[in-house]
This record gives sequence, C-alpha cells and structure tokens, in this order.
Amino acid sequence: MSEAKAKPIGPIPPYFASIDGELAIGGKTASALVAEAGDTPLFVYSTGALEARIGELRAAMPQQLGIHYAMKANPFAPLLGWMSARVDGFDVASGGELKLALDAGVAADKISFAGPGKRDRELEFAIANGVTLNCESEGEAERTFAIGQRLGVAPKIAVRVNPSFDLKGSGMKMGGGAKPFGVDAERVPALVQRIIAAGADWRGFHIYAGSQALDAEAIIAMQAQTLALAAELAQAVGVAPPKVNLGGGFGIPYFPGDAAFDLNTVGGALGQALSALPDILKKTHFCIELGRYLVGEAGVYLCRVVDRKVSHGEVFLVTDGGLHHQLAASGNFGTVIRRNYPVAIATRIDASADEVQSVVGCLCTPLDRLSDSALLPRAEVGDLVAIFCAGAYGASASPANFLGQGAALEMLV
Amino acid sequence: MSEAKAKPIGPIPPYFASIDGELAIGGKTASALVAEAGDTPLFVYSTGALEARIGELRAAMPQQLGIHYAMKANPFAPLLGWMSARVDGFDVASGGELKLALDAGVAADKISFAGPGKRDRELEFAIANGVTLNCESEGEAERTFAIGQRLGVAPKIAVRVNPSFDLKGSGMKMGGGAKPFGVDAERVPALVQRIIAAGADWRGFHIYAGSQALDAEAIIAMQAQTLALAAELAQAVGVAPPKVNLGGGFGIPYFPGDAAFDLNTVGGALGQALSALPDILKKTHFCIELGRYLVGEAGVYLCRVVDRKVSHGEVFLVTDGGLHHQLAASGNFGTVIRRNYPVAIATRIDASADEVQSVVGCLCTPLDRLSDSALLPRAEVGDLVAIFCAGAYGASASPANFLGQGAALEMLV
Repeated sequence: MSEAKAKPIGPIPPYFASIDGELAIGGKTASALVAEAGDTPLFVYSTGALEARIGELRAAMPQQLGIHYAMKANPFAPLLGWMSARVDGFDVASGGELKLALDAGVAADKISFAGPGKRDRELEFAIANGVTLNCESEGEAERTFAIGQRLGVAPKIAVRVNPSFDLKGSGMKMGGGAKPFGVDAERVPALVQRIIAAGADWRGFHIYAGSQALDAEAIIAMQAQTLALAAELAQAVGVAPPKVNLGGGFGIPYFPGDAAFDLNTVGGALGQALSALPDILKKTHFCIELGRYLVGEAGVYLCRVVDRKVSHGEVFLVTDGGLHHQLAASGNFGTVIRRNYPVAIATRIDASADEVQSVVGCLCTPLDRLSDSALLPRAEVGDLVAIFCAGAYGASASPANFLGQGAALEMLV
Repeated sequence: MSEAKAKPIGPIPPYFASIDGELAIGGKTASALVAEAGDTPLFVYSTGALEARIGELRAAMPQQLGIHYAMKANPFAPLLGWMSARVDGFDVASGGELKLALDAGVAADKISFAGPGKRDRELEFAIANGVTLNCESEGEAERTFAIGQRLGVAPKIAVRVNPSFDLKGSGMKMGGGAKPFGVDAERVPALVQRIIAAGADWRGFHIYAGSQALDAEAIIAMQAQTLALAAELAQAVGVAPPKVNLGGGFGIPYFPGDAAFDLNTVGGALGQALSALPDILKKTHFCIELGRYLVGEAGVYLCRVVDRKVSHGEVFLVTDGGLHHQLAASGNFGTVIRRNYPVAIATRIDASADEVQSVVGCLCTPLDRLSDSALLPRAEVGDLVAIFCAGAYGASASPANFLGQGAALEMLV
C-alpha cells in the first residue's frame, strides 16, 4: 500500500495527551472512556480544553466585553450546565434550544433568542420567560408586540441588523447583501422607534456578519465596521442602545494548512476600539457570541474499526461511526471541496504513521467517508479512531437516524 | 421585485392534483392534511403515487424479476407496512433498519442486509432471524461463520461484489475502482468457495454499481455488465447462484432539465437479456433493489410561511421548515452545486407565478435555503409551501435536532 498517495489532515488541537500509547482526554485513555460510556461511537468533550479556551479568551479580550455562548454549536445538557457558570450569556436559536438552556439552569435574563423563523408559540415562550428577542423583521416585531400585550408583559427586544458588510474570508457569510437574517441597516432606526413607541423594552442591536474566520485582520476590520454601524444606528435613533452584540466570527483550524488566528491581536484592537467610542455608545454594554470557537476543539469523536479491507490496493478502515454523527467531517455540510479533519488512531497514538488508510463509516453510501487517504499507524479491527474538532456541529448537526443508526453517546469529562 | 432574476425549479411529479385552489394529495387539500396532522412541518406520502409507480414498474419489467425495496430511502413505519405487501423483498442497511422492518411485519426471509460496517451484534440479530447477509468482506464472512456456529444456525450469505464498472452518469457511484463496499470481483470466487466450505447457505450475488441515473442506455449497459459479471463469477465458482441482486440505479428527476428515463426501454432490454442467459444462470432468481425510485416522488414536504421579508430588494419566505428535515433540498447532501427541487405555494397552487421569492428555513444559517429565487405566486404569512420529491432521503436523512428543532410530522395518505 506504500504506493498510495497520502492526503494531508487538519491540525490536531493542542489539548490532548497520550497515556500508555493511547490518546488521552481529561487524564483518561480513549479505551477507558469508551469502557466508561459502554459503547462506541462516542463524543467526548473535555472540560480541560473548554477551561483553557475560555481562559485564553478572557485574558485576551477587553475586560468589559461579555462572552456569550451560541449553544447551537453544542447543546449537550451537561456541557450547557458547565458553561452556564462560565459565560455571560447564552444565545439560543429556537424554542427547543431555549427549553434546553432553561432546563440546564441558565438564567432567563442571560438568554437572547435569534432566528429568522420564530413561530408565535416560540415568541410567547420567550416573552413569558423574560428572554431577549433578537428581532429579525418588522413583521416579527408586530407579532411580538401582540403577544406581549396578550401576556401583559413588555417584551425585551434587540434588533438584529443585516449589515451591508461581511466578514472577509469567513466560512459563512451572514451579512453583505440580501439576507434572510435581520433587518437591512437602513430600516433599523424606524423599527427601533416603533419598538420604543410600542412600549417594548428595547435592548439594543445584534449584528452578526459571519462566522469561522481565521484571519485576525478580517475579524478586526469586521468588529470596527460593526462598532461604526452601531454608532451610526444609535445616532439615527437618538437613544443609546443598552447592549450591542458584536457577533462572532472567531474560527478554528479544521483543515490542512489552517492555523489559529492570534487572539491577542484581535483582543488588543477591540480594546482600543472600545476605548475610543463615540459618546452615544459610552454606556453601552458590548458582547461577542461564540459557539464553535468555545467548544469545537474540545470535542473528540471516537469510533471503532469494525472491518479493515483492501480494495484495488487501497485500505479502508470501516468503523461503526459515520456521517450520521459527523456530517461536516464527511464534507457534506457547508463545504464544497472535501478535505480531511484531523484524525488519529486513538489506540495507537504514539505509533509511527506507516500506512495510507481511509476511514469510512458504516453507512451504505460513498458519502460516508470520515477521512480520506491519511497516513496513519496501521490499524486493525478493534482499534479506536479519533476524529478531532468534534465539539461543535457534530452530534446535533448530523442525521443521527439515517440508515437506522441512531445517536452516538456523549460524555463530558 | 420584478427585476430579480428567477432561477428554474425541478419538475413537479405528476401524481398530484388541485382542489379549491390548493395542492391536493390523495384527494385532500394541503390545508386539510395539515389540520389532520395537527402541525407543520409535515411530510405527506401518497399511496396513490406509490401504487402508480409500482404498477408502472411491474408492467415494464420482466415478470420474473423481483422488486426489492431499499428501506433506507424511507423507513416511516406505516409506509414499510404498506410496502411489505407489494414488493418481493426488503433491503436493510443496519440492525436498526432490520428491527423496523420486522416490526412492520416484513417476513425475515424476504429481507437482505447490506452494509460495510456490520457489528457483531447486528450480524447475530440477522442470523438469528434468518435474514440474508450481503457479505462485504472476507473478514465479515469469518465473523459471520463464527456467530453462526455459536448460534447453531447456518447463516444465509450472498456476496456483495465490487464491480470494476460503474453506472455512467449516476448520482452515486458504488463501483469502479477502490471502494469500501463489497469484495473486489477477482476475489469473489475464492470467497464463495470458502462460504460453501464453511457450511453456510450461499445465496448468490449482490452487485450494486450506482444510483440515481436518468439515462436509460446507461442503466441498460450497467445491467448487461452486471449479468455478464454474475455469469463470469458463477462459472469461476462452478455453482449456480440461487439469486442475483442486480442493484438499482433508477433515478428520479429532481432538478431543472431532469426528465424521467423510459422505463419500458429498460424493461424491454432487461427482458431480452434475461431470456439470453448462459446455462449457469438459467435457474437463478433475479431482482432489482430500488429505494428512491419507489418512494421519492410520492412524498411532499409541507411547511408554513412564518415571515415574509424583503432584504435589498429580494423576497424571502421564511418558513417553519428547513434543512433539518430536507437536507438534500438545501443542496447540502451529496451535491456540489445547489439547484432547486420542485417547489410550489401549496395554498395557491392555481395562482399565477408573479414574484421571485426564495424559500428559506427557520434555522440561523445561510445554508438553510429550500428554494432559491423561484418564480412563484406571491405568498403571505400563513401560506403553505410544498417541496416535492420529498419521499426519499428526507426525514431520516436530515439532522432533525439541529438548532433544537426536532422531527417533522409524517403521514401516509
């Protein structure tokens, strides 16, 4: 098999160790974690890695900046509970997520709810609980007023702005041109006036221009544009916004050649920008909203090799995992060209990489490839494979029931 | 909005009517179906459409050909039960699917189980129930013998062949080169000898070269190659295979410009080929295995417009549905370039298409677009949108829990 051409893999996050020749997460070997969970496939989320990431972030960012968790990245209940004591706010994207957050003990006044298609029953649930609604349209605002009136509660409303700029080099553009998210910037002042006139509790602005950028300068430029837009809108309204959510955009390295951006550069620039605000924003509270950046690198997906087979000279490690748990790693979610996530043979973490092997899932479809032609230690049936960067948009963003498979196990260690 | 450029949509399947200006499925309007189900989003599967499709197929195909249902396309329990009385076999892809099939009343001896990563417990479940295993590798064969021995049951084993040819123009190539599926053709005779020597019940061959082709000539060529390969392998083994599963490959039109292939042309050619078989295949039973072709066009996904918004001159119909139910329609599953599935405003089915509108889901991601810039009757909040070709790889092949949404309702009418 030595003639097979190896394809590069993404960088393995720096939060893991080896014990007895195995990948170790939170001081336990992959085998021990699987034994504790009782089966594979298994997502393991490391509180050590989460703690480290939050620590780096707090140290680099201006002290007054709030850090929100966008729970869409990972809604695993124990992780929500752990996170609730460590961040300043939660962003939810549905009534279902709101319920999960409340059930995990997150205080309702720390929660904001964004999402372009909020149903009346979701608005009602949020208003009744005192959650801030990031309002996505004039129509949604009117529905919100009506429900607030019916409930006898003044709804808390921030306006989600569709900015005219985007985040350069981002994986997902959420601004710049026609979008289903938020309200076009030029219509925002009128909407805020309407919200105030309707007796609602205006909470400020939510401005989200994009996600998953690895270029510090692009993030700095976006944050500067976001602050300028917030100032401009506040001037047009004539009232200071209590709060401005600057969005996210902080990316993590997934693929070969990707590298983490410099957090201190971004934090320093934001600190300078916040100290040079126009008067109307001087009392405003600012926050950023991160999902993937907080949890993505803290998660590892472990699956077991069920078969090792050779076809036309190529080696396939057939696992009991697959795209039904790790859709994005298979290259089928938001990516055009398939590239390899970081991968390792968890039970042979210190062995030398001596064979080109493709890791596939157990599904009967050619789409189900977790890693393509990577140079890895030669693995056998029974070995555990680790797919890294599995902490965000893994378990909850994959079609778990596809081909009758069902959900993976999850564990916070 | 008239200046916006409309993008074409796929062809609406011919199985639906209009009643009182609404899309009707099985004699009921979309509104009535939603009222009956109690909520949106809702998948509706039409037994009328299924019946028509199966009737066309039986009429066109040679009488002796078995028709199997590949239940991965749609595992909705009432549909499985309905289908079990109308097809000659079921193909399952996991222990989970096997359980669903048995629970739906499918006879175990009508079931075959293909899948590259069968776990020991899945093999055991299948063997204990007398299900035919489409064996994917020499290693899996040995595991199967061991389990059969332990259970005191001779396992039923067909060999899945990785053919050296593929299905030209198919959406998913399952053969031609190195693949995780089946056993390379040149190693198959030795494996069959081993199966027979081990005292297992050899059931024949499973040869699946690709799926979703719309070119009758390509399907005919693939079936001819498949029969030639089956004959060649049988000669090499020296024993006639009891059964040969010729795979599928029958595509349905999804996108602009797609057209159904001519079923009679394919059926005629297959009839001729089956009447000219070499002696060793004269007593062999042949079948084809179809999933999408049986059920894809029979399903409609109904979701409700929650907001109608305009951004930079473009109109967005924001619905309570989305890619969490219809991943493939959003262009995020197995497609490189996003194109529009057939779409309609179900509650204005007879109205003239007078506005370019994009149908988006309720998820907070730009990936969540069900239909891009289609010319449709102007829709308002409360209208129902229909996405067609939703009968296969919809509900079960989408990340239902993404952003806390949960599964759609499903209904067989």
